[in-house]
Amino acid sequence: MSNTQPVPQQAATSAACGTSRIVGCRFSLHPMTNDFVSLIKGAIEAVDTSKVWRYTDDVSTCVRGREAHVFDVVKAMVLHTSKTGAHVAFNATFSIGCPGDSEGDTYMAEDDIRLNEPGSIELRQYVSSQFALYPMGDPDYMATIMAQVGLAEEHGTLKKGVHYASGLHGDIHDVFTTLEEAFKQAQEGKSSHIVMTVNMSINSPSHQEEAH
Amino acid sequence: MSNTQPVPQQAATSAACGTSRIVGCRFSLHPMTNDFVSLIKGAIEAVDTSKVWRYTDDVSTCVRGREAHVFDVVKAMVLHTSKTGAHVAFNATFSIGCPGDSEGDTYMAEDDIRLNEPGSIELRQYVSSQFALYPMGDPDYMATIMAQVGLAEEHGTLKKGVHYASGLHGDIHDVFTTLEEAFKQAQEGKSSHIVMTVNMSINSPSHQEEAH
Repeated sequence: MSNTQPVPQQAATSAACGTSRIVGCRFSLHPMTNDFVSLIKGAIEAVDTSKVWRYTDDVSTCVRGREAHVFDVVKAMVLHTSKTGAHVAFNATFSIGCPGDSEGDTYMAEDDIRLNEPGSIELRQYVSSQFALYPMGDPDYMATIMAQVGLAEEHGTLKKGVHYASGLHGDIHDVFTTLEEAFKQAQEGKSSHIVMTVNMSINSPSHQEEAH
Repeated sequence: MSNTQPVPQQAATSAACGTSRIVGCRFSLHPMTNDFVSLIKGAIEAVDTSKVWRYTDDVSTCVRGREAHVFDVVKAMVLHTSKTGAHVAFNATFSIGCPGDSEGDTYMAEDDIRLNEPGSIELRQYVSSQFALYPMGDPDYMATIMAQVGLAEEHGTLKKGVHYASGLHGDIHDVFTTLEEAFKQAQEGKSSHIVMTVNMSINSPSHQEEAH
């Protein structure tokens, strides 16, 4: 599918940094099975995305809106794909503070009720993941990163540090709570433009020992 | 598989930022087929990694060494997985300037000869991808990003900007040349710690029209 939507280049965002507190997440789900198309389509149909702007191109899907709804939608997408039992990889880049345009701004008026949480909360899923924070434009960015790794340690989801990332694992709800909290708290530092990358591996045969 | 290797937390890297010019890449390959294990193992066996430090955990693989060899190994891994014809997704985070430790430093003495290029260069592969640059600790980071998006435009690999990334597409060798050049040139800016994320989608049915 060709992406024909008029969206600005990343570079064009510079002038508008920090003018909106809309949160975005560009993500992709990779079920490692021959049925990958039906699994992804099934997740898209099962998840209520009516409170976020959404666009899918040939590489990834982007959702934009209020922080709560972006995390709600993304977690539900992961859960609905992985509950099939397939080995699923998930990759995401969350961003706030550099939207560069107004697409999705109308969704900022939505209320606080997470549409997918009632369906998600009943599902349990062990995940192993790695995340990294990039507070942009701040010479003291390492202090922000250290504080959020400390938060993960408090939450009990920190697995260990690895090169260029920190490992998180546990039940998906606990891991997503840590991610959302870390992303939120990082915004309290000096940077107005926060990026967070996340990779998850789910239903990997190599996790069975660790999950119990 | 449990990661039992003693590696520092991301946060622990602050003291050592910029002390080494070792390049690292944390990546994962996701063949969307039931045979994903054999495809990944096949790629690992086919690629010569003797000039880089390498470690695989349950989420991703990390390679570290000289810039040329890191890009050589990663491109070869992608090519050897995708030449099977499987739909493959690739995700990577390249980093320089914040190693925080000495793992792999011995590999910095390797020569310039790329071990996998002779086997890679014969293979052709259309890829659609998205990349983002994060020059850390620099208030003027947007200027560095804009310059590298301009480079991609000069190379003819720039597809279009999307939220939070820039699209690159074309033959894998051209796309990797742009990525390596952008990563290298970004180091000439004010930031000593450069991060670049890349996502690729390969052999997707939706690419067949665009590739020709």
